[in-house]
Amino acid sequence: MVSSEEYKIEDFNEWFNDIIFKAELADQRYNIKGFVVFRPWSVYSISLMFRLYEDKLNDTGHQQVIMPTLIPEENFLKEAEHVEGFTPEVFWVTEHGSEKFENKYALRPTSETAFYFMFKYWLQSYKDLPMKTYQRANVFRYDSKATKPFIRGREFYWYETHNIFETIEDAEEQVLEDMQITEEMLHIAFGIPFIFFKRPQWDKFPGAINTFAADAIIPNGRVLQLPSTHVLGDKFTKTFDVKFKDKDEEVKYAYGTCYGPAISRIYGGMICVHGDKLGLRLPFDLAPIQVIITPLYFKDEDNEKVEKLSIEIAENLDKLGYKVKIDDQKEKTPKERFTFYEMKGVPVRIEIGPKDIFEGVATFFRRDLNEKYKVYLADIYDEIKKIKEEFITNLREQADMAFEEKIVTVTTYDDLKEVIESDQVARVPLCSIDMDGKACADDIKADTKGGEVRGTRMDYEDVPDEEAICVVCGKKADCMVYVGKSY
Amino acid sequence: MVSSEEYKIEDFNEWFNDIIFKAELADQRYNIKGFVVFRPWSVYSISLMFRLYEDKLNDTGHQQVIMPTLIPEENFLKEAEHVEGFTPEVFWVTEHGSEKFENKYALRPTSETAFYFMFKYWLQSYKDLPMKTYQRANVFRYDSKATKPFIRGREFYWYETHNIFETIEDAEEQVLEDMQITEEMLHIAFGIPFIFFKRPQWDKFPGAINTFAADAIIPNGRVLQLPSTHVLGDKFTKTFDVKFKDKDEEVKYAYGTCYGPAISRIYGGMICVHGDKLGLRLPFDLAPIQVIITPLYFKDEDNEKVEKLSIEIAENLDKLGYKVKIDDQKEKTPKERFTFYEMKGVPVRIEIGPKDIFEGVATFFRRDLNEKYKVYLADIYDEIKKIKEEFITNLREQADMAFEEKIVTVTTYDDLKEVIESDQVARVPLCSIDMDGKACADDIKADTKGGEVRGTRMDYEDVPDEEAICVVCGKKADCMVYVGKSY
Repeated sequence: MVSSEEYKIEDFNEWFNDIIFKAELADQRYNIKGFVVFRPWSVYSISLMFRLYEDKLNDTGHQQVIMPTLIPEENFLKEAEHVEGFTPEVFWVTEHGSEKFENKYALRPTSETAFYFMFKYWLQSYKDLPMKTYQRANVFRYDSKATKPFIRGREFYWYETHNIFETIEDAEEQVLEDMQITEEMLHIAFGIPFIFFKRPQWDKFPGAINTFAADAIIPNGRVLQLPSTHVLGDKFTKTFDVKFKDKDEEVKYAYGTCYGPAISRIYGGMICVHGDKLGLRLPFDLAPIQVIITPLYFKDEDNEKVEKLSIEIAENLDKLGYKVKIDDQKEKTPKERFTFYEMKGVPVRIEIGPKDIFEGVATFFRRDLNEKYKVYLADIYDEIKKIKEEFITNLREQADMAFEEKIVTVTTYDDLKEVIESDQVARVPLCSIDMDGKACADDIKADTKGGEVRGTRMDYEDVPDEEAICVVCGKKADCMVYVGKSY
Repeated sequence: MVSSEEYKIEDFNEWFNDIIFKAELADQRYNIKGFVVFRPWSVYSISLMFRLYEDKLNDTGHQQVIMPTLIPEENFLKEAEHVEGFTPEVFWVTEHGSEKFENKYALRPTSETAFYFMFKYWLQSYKDLPMKTYQRANVFRYDSKATKPFIRGREFYWYETHNIFETIEDAEEQVLEDMQITEEMLHIAFGIPFIFFKRPQWDKFPGAINTFAADAIIPNGRVLQLPSTHVLGDKFTKTFDVKFKDKDEEVKYAYGTCYGPAISRIYGGMICVHGDKLGLRLPFDLAPIQVIITPLYFKDEDNEKVEKLSIEIAENLDKLGYKVKIDDQKEKTPKERFTFYEMKGVPVRIEIGPKDIFEGVATFFRRDLNEKYKVYLADIYDEIKKIKEEFITNLREQADMAFEEKIVTVTTYDDLKEVIESDQVARVPLCSIDMDGKACADDIKADTKGGEVRGTRMDYEDVPDEEAICVVCGKKADCMVYVGKSY
């Protein structure tokens, strides 16, 4: 395995801003504040990520719908906590042409109040349950924090599932399926490690009974919230009169959950987690160009041979289904050409030079391991196949290692502060993640300049020792929580 | 080939409204006028249609981007004809939270004024051209006509390409590629016949030099506009200052085109064109369920055998990658179960009854031909494969035949009026589709209660006879045009 130190990013914020621009991922020059244009190099991967997620949601019995983007104010006002949470962030449509609407319409910041409005028509009997639905949507939130392309913007792009069940237990069971989907997509397919947390009671989605969320850790030690699931209980079903007749002819309210993988943000997380000093590293299966072929020009009499072989290899790889491109810019040095596509995150480079041809080999450079080596011309296609198969596993293992290294278990308040100070994530005993633990969490946040209690693990039971005490108040610790600053 | 008369739809409007509801394609009970909810049975196919179109746009060198949904009023106001055409239909965002924006933002009715705003940053040199881009987008138009799910609504779902070129000739060339893409998608993949027209000068996109569009013909004889391409010339590039340095270092404006396949509307066209008296007929590759297995229950002692075989066949088909479902509703008669999935457009039904098992066969019903026949159990999988391969060809050939039957060539004004009166489409000599032909077109529209001159064919040269005269004014006919009422 490559030594990660050599390729370590020094100033992460600088790296991120730089790569967005240099790799042409997004453009911040659009003339509305907080709204960003995504460029082809990112959108190609994002679109594939949407497809993979869609297949997974279909496979797990979710049915896709398309809801209107506009939501009537009256729907929106119905659920009090939801309104309170979202109203400050809502964009309102108030006019068409030169006429004012009688009632205004929200640009959906999330779509519970559209889905539950329809569920009341669709749900009749217990036989209709579970009803698992989802949509692909652009959502709008007037976030007052600074825009970060992919990570935070006033419009973003997600799947949102909205599921209803016969019982609250069924609803809670859905959290585990959502966690599993997140594992298979984020970790297995995209190589992004995370912990799936139950969030503290003071950090819930507006209108939820419980909120669960996947947190990744990016190279600067900050935690990044990726998909979250909310158990809504019967709050929205009661508000929107979503009822069913059960087996005994009794009429009951259903119980709801929602899950919101924001693909644009997951893409952001992915480039943060896999990026290195040289630039992006894109998973092989998601890269717009998987193999870049670089002919090396020296003497005129050799160039023709070099170009011919480059084209032949490109054509063969294309036929095998790979995304391949020849970088034949003669006006640039090999070094310039290498550096550019390394920065863009192209998984493999094949260099074709006259000396190599003479020896019957090509020079490979693979971005998962940052390794350069020779491959016999006859073995090129097997080698690419092998790289394709290994690539995401290598990225994932490196990311897993970096993830684990960022987490430090502490048992004292001083150690906690030191860990947060040093841009890491602390695992720490706390009195409670119910409302009675909020005072301690507030202290932590104040004393660490922003360290947040992210919650308790959902993937396995992580309980404190018998005698463990809360690092803040000294009461008996009820749980092990993770504390980190959010990106 | 099946006799189409037997399955002919009698009252098309009734059929359409009925099928939307009964097949659970869309729901019109959402509480904003003109906004419709698309349900899983339609969205499954629509999502696959988006994928096929995306692959095709990528293959033809278009690069996908994501633009913000909001467009500043100032961008919008820049191109005069464009503004005039769209302003009455624009939804405006004027507030966030409880605050008013200083300037208002349009919900994009189309995105020229976002793309060209960005093109000015992206275009530098002739080497950047052609620049072919597209996005998947929901667009918003306050259409005052009555809503028809998929066909007409105030929010719809499309790909929009925006391409810029070095010369006007290159831009005009793009029309031919767009026509080819339309052929490969609509006709070949979805089975929808159409004519690709050059529209008359009086029927252009606001801001275009020329508009081209594919018209399908639905069973009631109405024409339905499907994707259109617009040659924008240098109007938007001049407005938004989109320039490049050419080979001679001269600075020039680029020339633009756009193409807008509205996938939701194409889906609407597809169900209209293939539908018959029994209901929907969905292309095999787009159907949410491709094979419905119907066990026939008679005597208790046979039912177990029937169910076991049904499950076995379903599992095998599933392993082969088909979308398959068993319809085991014992409370319904076989007839009821047959009718339901015929109406939903499931391509194949396999009936499994005790008598069939005894004979070693299953009964097939295929919706492309509406034919019922026996298949040996051992041959089931080959038969399904064969049906899958033939299905879209059969639908396409039937649709082609119906399309041709609807078109009648006429040379007199009386005949033209009669053809339009009888819900057909007329092919007719006209003086001109430049502005000097507008008076004749207006007469036609008035005298036929809505018959519109749709333009001249782009797929082949269709010129009038030497001595042909315009059916309205009697001047020498410059072109053969098609006249039909639009849906």
